[in-house]
Amino acid sequence: MSTLSEAEIRHRLDPLRVINAIESAFRDLYPNVVIPLRTHLETDAGVFLIMPCYDRAGHALGMKLVMVQSRPARPEDRIQATYLLLEAETGLPKLVIPANYLTDLRTAATSAIATKFLAREDARVLGIFGTGRQARAHIKVVPLVRGFERVLICGRDANQVVEFAREISVESGLRVEPVDASTCAAESDVLCTCTSSAVPLFDGSLLRPGTHLNAVGAFQPRSRELDSAAVGRSRIVVETYDGAPEEAGDLLIPRKEGVISRDHIVADLHQLVSRKRLGRTQPSDITLFKSVGCALEDLATAKLLA
Amino acid sequence: MSTLSEAEIRHRLDPLRVINAIESAFRDLYPNVVIPLRTHLETDAGVFLIMPCYDRAGHALGMKLVMVQSRPARPEDRIQATYLLLEAETGLPKLVIPANYLTDLRTAATSAIATKFLAREDARVLGIFGTGRQARAHIKVVPLVRGFERVLICGRDANQVVEFAREISVESGLRVEPVDASTCAAESDVLCTCTSSAVPLFDGSLLRPGTHLNAVGAFQPRSRELDSAAVGRSRIVVETYDGAPEEAGDLLIPRKEGVISRDHIVADLHQLVSRKRLGRTQPSDITLFKSVGCALEDLATAKLLA
Repeated sequence: MSTLSEAEIRHRLDPLRVINAIESAFRDLYPNVVIPLRTHLETDAGVFLIMPCYDRAGHALGMKLVMVQSRPARPEDRIQATYLLLEAETGLPKLVIPANYLTDLRTAATSAIATKFLAREDARVLGIFGTGRQARAHIKVVPLVRGFERVLICGRDANQVVEFAREISVESGLRVEPVDASTCAAESDVLCTCTSSAVPLFDGSLLRPGTHLNAVGAFQPRSRELDSAAVGRSRIVVETYDGAPEEAGDLLIPRKEGVISRDHIVADLHQLVSRKRLGRTQPSDITLFKSVGCALEDLATAKLLA
Repeated sequence: MSTLSEAEIRHRLDPLRVINAIESAFRDLYPNVVIPLRTHLETDAGVFLIMPCYDRAGHALGMKLVMVQSRPARPEDRIQATYLLLEAETGLPKLVIPANYLTDLRTAATSAIATKFLAREDARVLGIFGTGRQARAHIKVVPLVRGFERVLICGRDANQVVEFAREISVESGLRVEPVDASTCAAESDVLCTCTSSAVPLFDGSLLRPGTHLNAVGAFQPRSRELDSAAVGRSRIVVETYDGAPEEAGDLLIPRKEGVISRDHIVADLHQLVSRKRLGRTQPSDITLFKSVGCALEDLATAKLLA
């Protein structure tokens, strides 16, 4: 049984390789992998998730353990993850690693894959709601698939947004601007919501035709980052049919309200990347990719470290 | 994150302390622990089980991972387990250990607890079906609760049984005798079935009144070590109502046949050890304890190593 530090993992995981690994996993492996429903365990600290995945073809077995704390000591500790890559034959652990960066990166890489297949080729403005780990990962990874010229950042705390924008601008070399929610919604070509908000972040009627949305933050039935207007206007692609449509308030609440039906979902990520179904049909479509996290993304990424 | 070797674990886990830890866990903690249904993942190698447990009162969180191989390289490798004791607050691993011996010991300790509460005080003959790791653990642990004078061993391979009996006799200082299945069934006061057999090991009509049975080996719906006669004649105590009655062929098959109903189960282990329900009502009762393994046993045992 071996381990790696977060620093080693950060050094070893090249974002482009992660994008490719997850894309080919969803294209080629997804129909044959076994992904049991993840276990949700309510604890006094928060929600503890167990996310196993078995890839028969690749002879790989692994699982992620995630605690989502309700009252973390520091906001950046809200999500704490560990990955276990196991011997497929014996189930014994061969690699046990901290998986916070892995989680941030694989989530952003999955958004990047959706963006590659759904966003307009001429997308130039990337909008981000949030200033946490996922926001940071998305700003690092999503620009690998489109030629963004501006990044707009919107967050709850104005000072924090300014500080975050300054940092990111230095790191990324991109032009990064703090903006309010309406500007972020109205001026982004690709908009990523990476917050822990339980309620919609902006008025969906502000979205311009042609926008692509990646909704990342909400993963429970009563939480959502998008309002029903945004969802009702979108062609929706989900990560998996078992996941977001059953777990995320972004889709469950508009469905309950009758704004969308299940038919509103035009594809899952497997169908999208294997080109079995079309996401965007015309430049004026608003497209939405809704993810809640899938154990295959973790396994595909962890395999790069074995 | 720390680890221990199997040898260190063997040295540190005193069987009597394990018996006491599991007994008090079932008596005091069980009503408030959270034990999600264990995940069964069918792999090419066998069945992979994920068994989490959260003890709110004790602020403890952990899980066992178990591969039960269908075609192990060596029979003693059939069950391979790992235990993860986690920080209850963050879900991060504090102890990751090989858990084969832990599994053998906690299973035998649980049988010993059932034996303590269900077997006749004057039980003198311990019968064991099986010559594997569980058989060995039961011979080590169950005699801690009753004053056995003889141990009868029955197994498929006559040479192996003789060899096993010789070894065990040296280790335990008990009089150990290889016997056939009918003798084992008819002459034991406490009888433990510790095999991977899918079909009944003996004719249940041979059991003498007053016998206590611990049925350990079968944990899937179509496998059983006991026939319907043995089960029909018994006052049944289960480890948990969620476990054995739903998972084990020993109980499911006689229920399907109409030999027993669910009412036939007189108690679970919590009710037994907290004396809320009575297992044995008279010396002539045949009592049966059926276990499939419960995540609380692992957590209670692993906590002794923290």
